[in-house]
This record gives sequence, structure tokens and C-alpha cells, in this order.
Amino acid sequence: MTGVALFSRAKHQAYTPSLQLVPQVLAGSRLAIARMISRAEANYLEAADALAEIYKHTGNAHIIGITGVPGAGKSTLVSSLIKSLTSDGRKVGVVAVDPSSPFSGGAILGDRVRMNDAAEANQAFVRSMATRGHLGGLAPSTLQAVDVLDAAGYSPIIIETVGVGQDEVEIVSAAHTIVVLSPPGLGDDIQAIKAGILEIADIHVVSKADKPEAGAAVAALKGMLSLGATRPNSTWVSPVLAVSSVSGEHLESLKSSIDRHWKHLQDSGELVDRRRNNCRTRIFNMARHSFQHRFQEHADVLEAQLQAVVNREVDPQSAAQVLLSWNVKS
Amino acid sequence: MTGVALFSRAKHQAYTPSLQLVPQVLAGSRLAIARMISRAEANYLEAADALAEIYKHTGNAHIIGITGVPGAGKSTLVSSLIKSLTSDGRKVGVVAVDPSSPFSGGAILGDRVRMNDAAEANQAFVRSMATRGHLGGLAPSTLQAVDVLDAAGYSPIIIETVGVGQDEVEIVSAAHTIVVLSPPGLGDDIQAIKAGILEIADIHVVSKADKPEAGAAVAALKGMLSLGATRPNSTWVSPVLAVSSVSGEHLESLKSSIDRHWKHLQDSGELVDRRRNNCRTRIFNMARHSFQHRFQEHADVLEAQLQAVVNREVDPQSAAQVLLSWNVKS
Repeated sequence: MTGVALFSRAKHQAYTPSLQLVPQVLAGSRLAIARMISRAEANYLEAADALAEIYKHTGNAHIIGITGVPGAGKSTLVSSLIKSLTSDGRKVGVVAVDPSSPFSGGAILGDRVRMNDAAEANQAFVRSMATRGHLGGLAPSTLQAVDVLDAAGYSPIIIETVGVGQDEVEIVSAAHTIVVLSPPGLGDDIQAIKAGILEIADIHVVSKADKPEAGAAVAALKGMLSLGATRPNSTWVSPVLAVSSVSGEHLESLKSSIDRHWKHLQDSGELVDRRRNNCRTRIFNMARHSFQHRFQEHADVLEAQLQAVVNREVDPQSAAQVLLSWNVKS
Repeated sequence: MTGVALFSRAKHQAYTPSLQLVPQVLAGSRLAIARMISRAEANYLEAADALAEIYKHTGNAHIIGITGVPGAGKSTLVSSLIKSLTSDGRKVGVVAVDPSSPFSGGAILGDRVRMNDAAEANQAFVRSMATRGHLGGLAPSTLQAVDVLDAAGYSPIIIETVGVGQDEVEIVSAAHTIVVLSPPGLGDDIQAIKAGILEIADIHVVSKADKPEAGAAVAALKGMLSLGATRPNSTWVSPVLAVSSVSGEHLESLKSSIDRHWKHLQDSGELVDRRRNNCRTRIFNMARHSFQHRFQEHADVLEAQLQAVVNREVDPQSAAQVLLSWNVKS
């Protein structure tokens, strides 16, 4: 009895309600930020109100998506950017998503990134997240983690994703500035790059600029861009940069391109459209996740409809309507 | 005035309410079948009750999915199958979906397929459909067209899709027997085949058996299958056949494999599971389509929520809940 009571008490004491964490998140507490992101990732129902409250304090950060094929050197580039941006005195957030390793857990990028000095460690918040959703694309918690960092005053916030199919498209709806990283020695891979990735890039970066093939890759990308592959409804001309994370070569020009793009979005008014489109996609994805989640939790309701459809007593359209109109507080 | 009145009257006279078409569909009227499928494809609200009624008369047909990369020879194979199956006295339905050509309209396959004699023309119903949904995969109307043919007494019903990414997976949820067609001279393409298509095939067919490379392709596929790529929870061993649609070589063995698989599904009890899984996927896809459709029709509701999210007055999760719980008779 005593053991149980002690255990319950300890558990109770350890758990701070999420809403109580909100003021600490807004004040920039690293511990509160880490907890809130963990609760979003674990999909705690209890955290929903807190995340809703946090959302209202967002909209200040410049969100940068960095994507590219595996092996392009994304993590190395992000490490270099963290170092460079924090040395300017900026508070840099990083949310890294790697769908190819669902068990990557919470600390992997943190391990890879060497925090070089105390200032850098204090000024940057790096979080690696697994993609929980089986629906393809970014999990809702990825964007909630960005919200938490945004509300806590981090800017820019970098979302790092492996650019494979669906994710390339999803990141467009999550960020303001898209940086697409390509390895040098493109050659035969140019077809793969043509298929979708050219259009989404606000800034092209060829990694490993110290390698001799980098120049050819830059020329190939510039050639393809000159054929007119740019984002629709934008006057921005995407630059092509070669960056060496090893020597630090041209890292400053990447940083200034990122800042220039952010300024362009604000000055041209394109930011308004981009924010709007991002919100629309996010609402739909959230609805899709909620709908799926609802019937994982309430399998009996789904089961009854399913059995009726299997028995040809109810048609799929009517069953879908029943499920859509069936309300649960979830 | 007279002109308008005449026009209205002619229009009124031409339109038979969908529910009135149902008995004609069940009786096998080709005209009624064609109309009902057109109304499903055009997403007529008026047709919903009729399609619901038709669904209750389905569940008799053997539904065969035929998929493969562009150029594998799907249409030629389907033409040969139609000829062979109708000569057995079977009523064969074909629903062809080509997502790569959204403007294929209603008659393309019909043009390609030469109906060789009156019997074949009477016994087969071939319909080519555009994929209307922008959500990837099979449109709801594709499965409704299959329903119409099923209720009208057609069996087997062949769904022909181009096997590109998402569609390979979707067809698994729409059919009982999956035939995957591969061109000979696989060679380097074997990686592409490995990625997903091996597992879904109940029957592998290498096309153009008259070509010398066909033998090597059969051997390569058999080799990969021996490594264990089969559908989970099934005792079926997928055969690998080489078929020439030109010479008709081995077409009979394909036909008997198809029949043997259908018998296997029934005898083993696997049909029950497969039907159940197919219904589940269909209900979810239908709900997804309805949800999206609802807010295309009622843009103002979505707009109000979107603006609130853009303004940070409402968080995306709450907006999604409002949209999910917002009921419309649609």
C-alpha cells in the first residue's frame, strides 16, 4: 500500500500540467520547450489546450525547410548554419525529421551536432523527431514542435527532412523558405531532380563545394532553372550556390540568400499568400489525422459500419457519411 | 419564350432519374449501365441513392486488377483476355483507369479494343475512366463503376491501372486477384519492381513472350519470388507466366491461373479477409473524398476557419475539429 501511494505521489509530483508550462515556454525555458515538444510528439490529449494557446503566440519566426536526397549532406550543412547563425546572436531552432529511420528517437541529431561553445549551446535548440504518422508527409507534431520554438522566440527555425517523394511536397507547406541541397556529381541523377524538386526550391545549394564536380552540378542546375522551372506566382529568382561545410566556403552567401528571400517575401507580399497556403494544408492534414485517430480509438463504431458494408446492407458512401458525422470529443 | 420552353422540356424528357435506372441496370441494360457509370463519374448528387441501392446487389463478381508499368502491354493483354473470356460465354466487364492522361475521356480503350464479332461485343462492357480525384489513387467512381457492372451480372470484372507508385497499392484494395504485368528485358528495372510490386502480385505475367528476353525475365522474377516476397497471411504461391498477346501463347494458362486463384480465395477463406480489407479501405477513401468535396462546395466555412488560423485566433487542431464536426447533407 505504502509503495503504491509513494509511487502515485511521485508520479503526480513529476507531472506539470501542460497549460502550466505555457508561460515558461513563452519565457524561453529550455526544459519547458523540451517537455512540450515531447508531449506533442506523444500526442498527449492533455497537451491540446496548451498547444492551441501556444499557436496564438506564433507567426514571428522565419521557417526554413532544408531538404535533399540522402547523402546530400543536410546534417552537416545544418550544423554549419547553426554555428554561423548563433554567432550572429540569433536563437536558432532545428526540427529534424527522418522518415527513413522511424526509430531515430529524440537525440540523434543532437549527438551529431557538436555544440562548440556555451553560447552556441544556449542559443540553439535542436530536436530530432520520428515521423509517427503512417499517412506520409510531416506528422502534426513536427509543425507543433515548430510552433513551440516559434512561440519561445526562436528564429530562424530550420526543418530538416530527407527529400523523398511526398516529403518534398509537404515541406513546401510547412516553411517560408525552401533550401534544396544536391550532392555534386549529379550527372545521371538529374532526371530525379527534375521530377519535382526544382520547382519547390527557393535556394539551390550544391554541397561539398570543395569537390571538383561541384562546378558542373551548379552549371547543370542553373541550366535547368533557365528553362523556367520556378515557383508559380513568384518574382523570386532562385540562386544556385555551392557550399562547403568543411571549409565554410560560401556559407555566408547562403545565409545572406536566406535572409534576402525572407525580406523578398515580406516586401513583395508573397508571405501573406504563402502563410495562407501553409495554414490551409495544415488544417486539412490535421483533419485527416484526427479522423484516422478517432477510429483507432473507437474501433467499435468503425467495426459496425464496416460489417454492414461487408454484408452489403450499407453502401460505402453512406458508411463514410456516418463516420464523418459521428462526433467525438477527441 | 417558346425556344426556352422547348429546351427545358427536351432536357426534362431526356433525363431519367437514376433510381429509375436501377432495375434496368440489374436487368443488364447496356444503356442503363453506361448512364449510371457516367453519373457516378460526374459525381451527380442525384445518383447517390441509386448507387447505394446498386451496391446492395454487388458481391458476386470476381474482380481482377491488372497493373504494370507503362509499355508493359496491359491494354493488349486485356483485349486478349476479353476475347478469350467472352468466347467461354462469360460476361466480362473492364474499367480502365489511366492517371497519366487525365483527359482520356470515355472511349479510348473502347477504340483500341477491336470487338471481333457480335457475341464479343454483346458479352463485354468496356469503360475507360479518367481519374478525377487529385488525392492520388483510385477515384470513388472507379469502384462505383465496378459496382454497376457487378450488380448487372458481369464477372469477371477487370480493373486496368497504370502501375505507378500509389496506384499499385490502391488496386490491392479494389480487387480480389492482382495480375502484375512486366515487360521482358527487365534487367536494370528489377530494382523498381522490387520496390513494392512483387508483394502485391497474385499472378506475375511477363508480356511479349515471343521476344527472346522473356525467358530471362521469368527466371529473374522467379528468383526474386523464391526469396520470399509474397502477400502476408496467404498460402497462395504466385505463379510467373510468360504470355504473348500476339500469338496467344499461354493465354489459356493465365486464364486458368486467374480462375485457380479465385477458387483458392474461396476455399481457403482468404476471400473473407480480402473483402473486409477492401471495404475498410474503400470507406476511408470515401470519407476522405467526401470531406474534401464538402469544403469545395462550402468554401465560406473553410474560409472562415482558415482566416482565423492565419490570424492566429484559432489553432489548426481546433479548426480541423470544427470542420470535421460540421455537418452537411452532401
